[in-house]
Amino acid sequence: MKYFLEPESVAMIGTPRQTGPDTYNGVEMMLRYGYQGRIYPINPKADEICGLRAFPSITEVPETVNLVIISMGRDQVVAAFKECIQSGVKRVMIVSQGFADADPHGEKLQNEIVRLARESGIRVVGPNTLGILNNFRNFSTSFVDLIKPKKIPPVSLIAQTGMIQVASHNLAYHDWGKALDIGNACDVDFVDALEYFGADPETRVIVVHMEGIIRGREFLKAASRISPDKPIIIFKTGRTTAGAKAALSHTASLTGEDEIAEAAFNRAGLIRVKNGSELKDAIRSFIQFEDMEGPRLGVLTPTGAGGIMATDACEDFGLKIAELPEGLPDKLKKGIPDWVHIGNPIDIWPVGMLGGGYSQAYRTALMELLKSPKVDGVLGVTVSVDSPLHKNIDIVEAVAAARRESGSRKPIAMWVYGSGTDDTVERLEPATDNVACFESVERAAQGLSFCYRYHQLRKREISSQRSFPYDHEQAESLLQKGRGRKILLGEDALALLAAFGIHVSRGKIARNWKEIKEAADELSYPLVLKLSGEAFLHKSDWGGVMTGIRNKKELREAFQGMKEKVNDRNPAVKIGFHVQEQVGGKELLVGLKLDAQFGHILACGYGGIYTEVFKDVSRELVPVGRPEAEKMISSLKIYPLLKGVRGEACVDWEGLLETLERVSFLATEVPDIKELDINPLMADASGCVAVDARIVW
Amino acid sequence: MKYFLEPESVAMIGTPRQTGPDTYNGVEMMLRYGYQGRIYPINPKADEICGLRAFPSITEVPETVNLVIISMGRDQVVAAFKECIQSGVKRVMIVSQGFADADPHGEKLQNEIVRLARESGIRVVGPNTLGILNNFRNFSTSFVDLIKPKKIPPVSLIAQTGMIQVASHNLAYHDWGKALDIGNACDVDFVDALEYFGADPETRVIVVHMEGIIRGREFLKAASRISPDKPIIIFKTGRTTAGAKAALSHTASLTGEDEIAEAAFNRAGLIRVKNGSELKDAIRSFIQFEDMEGPRLGVLTPTGAGGIMATDACEDFGLKIAELPEGLPDKLKKGIPDWVHIGNPIDIWPVGMLGGGYSQAYRTALMELLKSPKVDGVLGVTVSVDSPLHKNIDIVEAVAAARRESGSRKPIAMWVYGSGTDDTVERLEPATDNVACFESVERAAQGLSFCYRYHQLRKREISSQRSFPYDHEQAESLLQKGRGRKILLGEDALALLAAFGIHVSRGKIARNWKEIKEAADELSYPLVLKLSGEAFLHKSDWGGVMTGIRNKKELREAFQGMKEKVNDRNPAVKIGFHVQEQVGGKELLVGLKLDAQFGHILACGYGGIYTEVFKDVSRELVPVGRPEAEKMISSLKIYPLLKGVRGEACVDWEGLLETLERVSFLATEVPDIKELDINPLMADASGCVAVDARIVW
Repeated sequence: MKYFLEPESVAMIGTPRQTGPDTYNGVEMMLRYGYQGRIYPINPKADEICGLRAFPSITEVPETVNLVIISMGRDQVVAAFKECIQSGVKRVMIVSQGFADADPHGEKLQNEIVRLARESGIRVVGPNTLGILNNFRNFSTSFVDLIKPKKIPPVSLIAQTGMIQVASHNLAYHDWGKALDIGNACDVDFVDALEYFGADPETRVIVVHMEGIIRGREFLKAASRISPDKPIIIFKTGRTTAGAKAALSHTASLTGEDEIAEAAFNRAGLIRVKNGSELKDAIRSFIQFEDMEGPRLGVLTPTGAGGIMATDACEDFGLKIAELPEGLPDKLKKGIPDWVHIGNPIDIWPVGMLGGGYSQAYRTALMELLKSPKVDGVLGVTVSVDSPLHKNIDIVEAVAAARRESGSRKPIAMWVYGSGTDDTVERLEPATDNVACFESVERAAQGLSFCYRYHQLRKREISSQRSFPYDHEQAESLLQKGRGRKILLGEDALALLAAFGIHVSRGKIARNWKEIKEAADELSYPLVLKLSGEAFLHKSDWGGVMTGIRNKKELREAFQGMKEKVNDRNPAVKIGFHVQEQVGGKELLVGLKLDAQFGHILACGYGGIYTEVFKDVSRELVPVGRPEAEKMISSLKIYPLLKGVRGEACVDWEGLLETLERVSFLATEVPDIKELDINPLMADASGCVAVDARIVW
Repeated sequence: MKYFLEPESVAMIGTPRQTGPDTYNGVEMMLRYGYQGRIYPINPKADEICGLRAFPSITEVPETVNLVIISMGRDQVVAAFKECIQSGVKRVMIVSQGFADADPHGEKLQNEIVRLARESGIRVVGPNTLGILNNFRNFSTSFVDLIKPKKIPPVSLIAQTGMIQVASHNLAYHDWGKALDIGNACDVDFVDALEYFGADPETRVIVVHMEGIIRGREFLKAASRISPDKPIIIFKTGRTTAGAKAALSHTASLTGEDEIAEAAFNRAGLIRVKNGSELKDAIRSFIQFEDMEGPRLGVLTPTGAGGIMATDACEDFGLKIAELPEGLPDKLKKGIPDWVHIGNPIDIWPVGMLGGGYSQAYRTALMELLKSPKVDGVLGVTVSVDSPLHKNIDIVEAVAAARRESGSRKPIAMWVYGSGTDDTVERLEPATDNVACFESVERAAQGLSFCYRYHQLRKREISSQRSFPYDHEQAESLLQKGRGRKILLGEDALALLAAFGIHVSRGKIARNWKEIKEAADELSYPLVLKLSGEAFLHKSDWGGVMTGIRNKKELREAFQGMKEKVNDRNPAVKIGFHVQEQVGGKELLVGLKLDAQFGHILACGYGGIYTEVFKDVSRELVPVGRPEAEKMISSLKIYPLLKGVRGEACVDWEGLLETLERVSFLATEVPDIKELDINPLMADASGCVAVDARIVW
C-alpha cells in the first residue's frame, strides 16, 4: 500500500495531449496539486505534456516507476496492463469505467486483469476509481481539480466512490488526510486499506464508505483489532434497499442484510453513521474529543428554550441530564435576586445580567460542570452577536479558562447561535482542547453520543464460544438425516436440539390411534396433538394443531377430527402425528441464519403470530457468550415482561441465556446449517423449552 | 396586533442613561435598527438619551403612544403599568423577567398586571420577552443588537423565547420577516398572533415555537382555518420530557402529552418539526417550493454512490424512486457506448463524459424528469469545483433551462458538493423557481418530504361527528351511577357501551353459586368467570379470571377456586361474580382520554398483556369519522393481521370502524368522561365485541 499512497515516481498511461479547461488531464491535476515525485506522461502522439517529456509506452520509461495509472478506453486497458508487466511495475491503478460495473464483457475484461495481476504479483487499485489522495505528500490522482486543505486532519477515508473525496468540504470536518477509492476493488479492497491505515501513524480516525461487503470475515477481524486504538466510522449505504430474501424460517426473514451488517459492525466495534450529516459530526467528534465515559451531560444555555431543546436532544440520542453539582447554585447566585432558579440545564443569562456579567458566569458554571464527578460531558449553548455593543457575551476565553482551571479533559460540544456564530466558532476550537462546535443543539448532542458510543464499544467484553458436552452419536444420525433431506422438522429437529442439551418438550411420533394412545400413557396431560411429516410444513393450514387436550376422550376427538380434515383435503397424503406435553409460558423465537459474508447470526425475540408484525428481535454474530446473550435479551422490547411485571415471576434466566449459548455452540459444531428456527421457545419461571423447531441445510 | 408590529410611536420606560457596550439600551438598539417612528425614552434621571429628549414619566409624553415598552426591575413594573393606564396607552410590552417564570411572588405580580390590563382594555405582550421584530418596518424591540437581513422572507415567527429571533441565521432560511416572542403570554398568546399572521399579506409561511400549549381548542380552530392557505410549521419542544401521568386506564397511560399534541397538530394540518435542522429545512422548502403532489422522485446524480444515498434517504422520509420516463435512456445514450446503464437514480457522469458534456446531459435528463407524469419532484445531486478547469460541470444554467423548457413547476431539491458549493448554491436559487439547495442529500429528501406532507394535509378530509340513536334511559341511569362512584367497571361499563349500540359480550352479574348457575343457563358455553366489584380493580392479582369453562362441572370448580382464593386473602371483602360468554378473535384496545387542552382523544391499538410493551396505538381527536377511523386502523402495526394473513379471514371491518365512530359519539354525548378503556375488544370475522371495560370520571 505504501507505494500507492507515497509513490516516488508515477507514470500515467493515456495522458491526454490537451491540457486546460475540460480536458480532465490527470498529469496537469497532479502537478497543480503539488506532487513532488517524478511524473511520466505516456502518450504515443505526444513528445511533451505539461512541460514533461512524454513517452510512447511504459516500456520506454527509463526507470521502473512505483505506480502506473491507466486511464483509457476499457478495451485498451488489458494491453496496457501487459506492458506494465513487461516493464516490471508492481503497482497499477485503473481509472477507466466499463468493467464489472457495466456489463458481462466488462466483467470478463476485469477477470482477465485479475488473472494477470495474480500471475505477475502486481497489486491493482480499481478499475472505476478516482484513486488516491495523500495530503501529507501533496499527492492526488484525481482527474477532478481538487483544492489542497489548509489544515490536514489525521482522518483517512476508504470509499467505494470518488464522490466522498471530492465532497470533502461537505462530508468531512475540514478535509481528508488520506483517501483511497477502491472502485470495483478487483484486487486492493477494504481489508488491505484498513490494515494499512490501522498501522499508519498519520491516521488517527478511519472512515469507511461501504456499498457492498467484501471479504466480510477478514474485514471484521481487521476492524476488531484496530477499533480499540482508532475509531472506525462506517458509512454503509444501500441500507434500506437491502431486504430479507425469501426464507423458510422466521429467523431468516427477520434478519435481512442490513440487520446482519449492523450486528457485524457492532461486534467489530465500528461506529455506524446513517447519512452525510452524521458522518460529518462523527468525524468532528473523534478529532476533537478524547473520550466520554458516561451519558451524563451538564447543559449550559443563555435561554430556558435552549435547555428544553437540549433535553429533547439528550433523550433522542440516549444521553442523560446530569445532577447539578453541589455548591454550584451558591457560587452562581452570589449577589443576584433569589427568584433566579439554577438547575441543569443551567439558564445562565439572568445570572450574568443581574450578576458579574455573562461570560464570567459562563466560566464559573462551566468550570464546576467540568470538575463535577457527576458530569461526563458538557453541552454548551451560547449566543454570539456580531456587534461592538456585546463584547462581554463572548465566551471563547471563558471556555479556555474553565478548561485550564478545571484540569478536566471532558468533551464540550457547543452550539453557537446569532450573527457572530462563524467568528466565535473559528476562534473557539483552536482556543482549547476537547471542544467542538456543531450546527445545531441536537447535532451537538449527537456528536457527544458518538463519543460515548465509542467508549462503550471499546469497553465491551467479547467472549469466545463456550463448549458443552453433547450426544455425538444421536446428533450424527440426525445430521445425516437432515443433510440428506435438506430439512429437519418437528420431532427430528427437537431431537437434534435435545442432543445438544437444549430442553425440548416431551413428545412422541405416532402413526395411528394405537401409537397415540401409547404415547399419551407415557406423557402427562394436558397434551398437544400435531400433524407430523413432510406434507405438513405449514400445519396450521391443515388445522393440524390441537392444544389443551386434557384426557383420552378429548385426545380421541382431536385425532379423529384431524384425520378427517386431512382425508377431506387429500386422502392420498401419508399422515403422521406428534403427541407432545403442553408447555406454558411466554412465546419466544430463537434461530440461526448462515450469512455468506459473516457466518452464523443468532437471533432471539418475541415469537408467535405477532413475530413478523412487531419484529422485536435482537441479533448477534456467533459465537454468543454470556455477555452477548444478556445484551440480546435485555435489548428486547419484551424484556420487562420476561423479567416479570405485576408480581409475575421472572422467566428462568439462566436457562434462557444458556439456551442461546448452546444454540451458538450448535452453530459452531454444525457450520453447514443454513437456517434454524426454534419457534416457539416457551419460557417461564420453571424453565425454557423448545416446543417446535425447523432446521434447513 | 397592528400596533404591536407597526407602531408609529414607542415609549420605553426604564431606558438606561448609559449607551454603548454592554448597556443593552433598547432605545439605542431601536435607532441602530433604523426604526422611523417617534421614540420617547422614559428615565427620570436623564434629559436626553441617544440624542432624543427623555421624559421623567410616560404621563408627561406629549402624545398617546402606540406602544409602551417596560424594562425595569419586576417590583417597579406594576407602578409603571398604572401610569400607562393614566396616559391612555392601549399597548404595553413588558421585557422584565421574574414573574410567572420565577416564583409565587412573581406570579402574583403578573396576575395583578393581567387584572389591570383587563380593566383598562390594554393588551400586553410578555412579561419575560425579547418582544417584537418587523423587518418590513425596520422595527425591533430587542435589547440585543440584531443585524438587518439582506433579504426579507415572508416568514413570520411566533415563539415562547427570544432565542429563535436572535438565532435567525442558524434556524431560519435567510431570516425572519416578522417575529413575536410571547414570553409568559400573560395576555397576547399564540392564538392572537396566529390570527394576525394568518391575515397578514406580508406573511406566507408561519413558524410556531411552542413549549407549553395555551388555549388549545382556540389554537387548533385558528390553525385549521389558516393552514390550507399558509403552511404552519410547529416546533414543539419539551417532546421527550412530556410523559404520561399516572392513570387508571391503558389508554391514558399510552396517550402522553406529546402523543396528544401530535394528534392535535395533525388534525389542524400543522407541519411538525423535531429540531432546529428540520425547522431550517422546512422553512426553506415552503419558501422555495409550491407543492409536491406525490412521493415519486426522479434522482439525478454524478455518481452511483450519490444515487444509493438518495435511495436510502427517500425510504427514510417516505418518498419513492419514480419509474424512469420512457424514451429518456434513448435521448441520453445517443453516441455513447451501450454499456452505460441508465436507470433512476440517473448516474449522469459517464453520459456527460462520453457524450455531449456533463451540464448538457444534466439539462436533458432534468427536463425529461420534470415533464414526466410519473415524477412528482426531483432530487438533484451535483458536483461543483472551484477551478477554471471545470466550467462545463456548472449546472446553474442547465437547471434554469430545463425549468423553462419543461414548463413544469415541480420542486427540485439539490445537494451540491465540492469546493464550488457555496458559489453554485448562491447562483442556483435566484436562477429559477422552485429550486432549493440543502446541506446533504438526506436533508434535500427531507425538504421535499415536508412539501409532500403539506400537500397531503391540505387534501385530507375532515368529518364531523356522525350521530347514532341510543337508549337514553338506560344510559342516564348508568351515567348517574358512574358519576356518583367516579368509575364504572365490568358489567356496568359494558352496559353503558351497549346502550350506545356497541356490541358487548353477553354476561350476567351473580352473587352466589345459585345465581351463577342461573346465569349459565341463559348463556352458552364456553364461559368466562370473573370476580366482580370495587375490590377487584386488578382481577388478575386476585386470580379472578377463569376462561375456557366448558360445562357446569368446570364452572363449579372455577367458582369454588375463586371463592377460596378471595377468602384466603381477605375474608371480609364483599365478593361478586361476572359470568360471560367467551369470545374469540384478536385482542384490541379502544379508549378515550379527556385532555384539558384539546378535549377527548380516541385511542385504538393492540390489546392484551403486550399493549404497554409494543405501544402499537394510534390516536385521533374526537370527533372521529369514517376516514379518521380508517386512518387509525391502517396505521397500526397489526393492521395486516386484522386484514388477515395466511388465508385467515379479515376481521369485521365495518363493525370495527363503527365501534370507533360510536365511541367517539359517546364522548361527544358524555363530555365529562375522563378515561374510557375497552380492553379487550375482541375482533374477528364474525364481529367486534367489547369483553371488558372501565370508565372513569
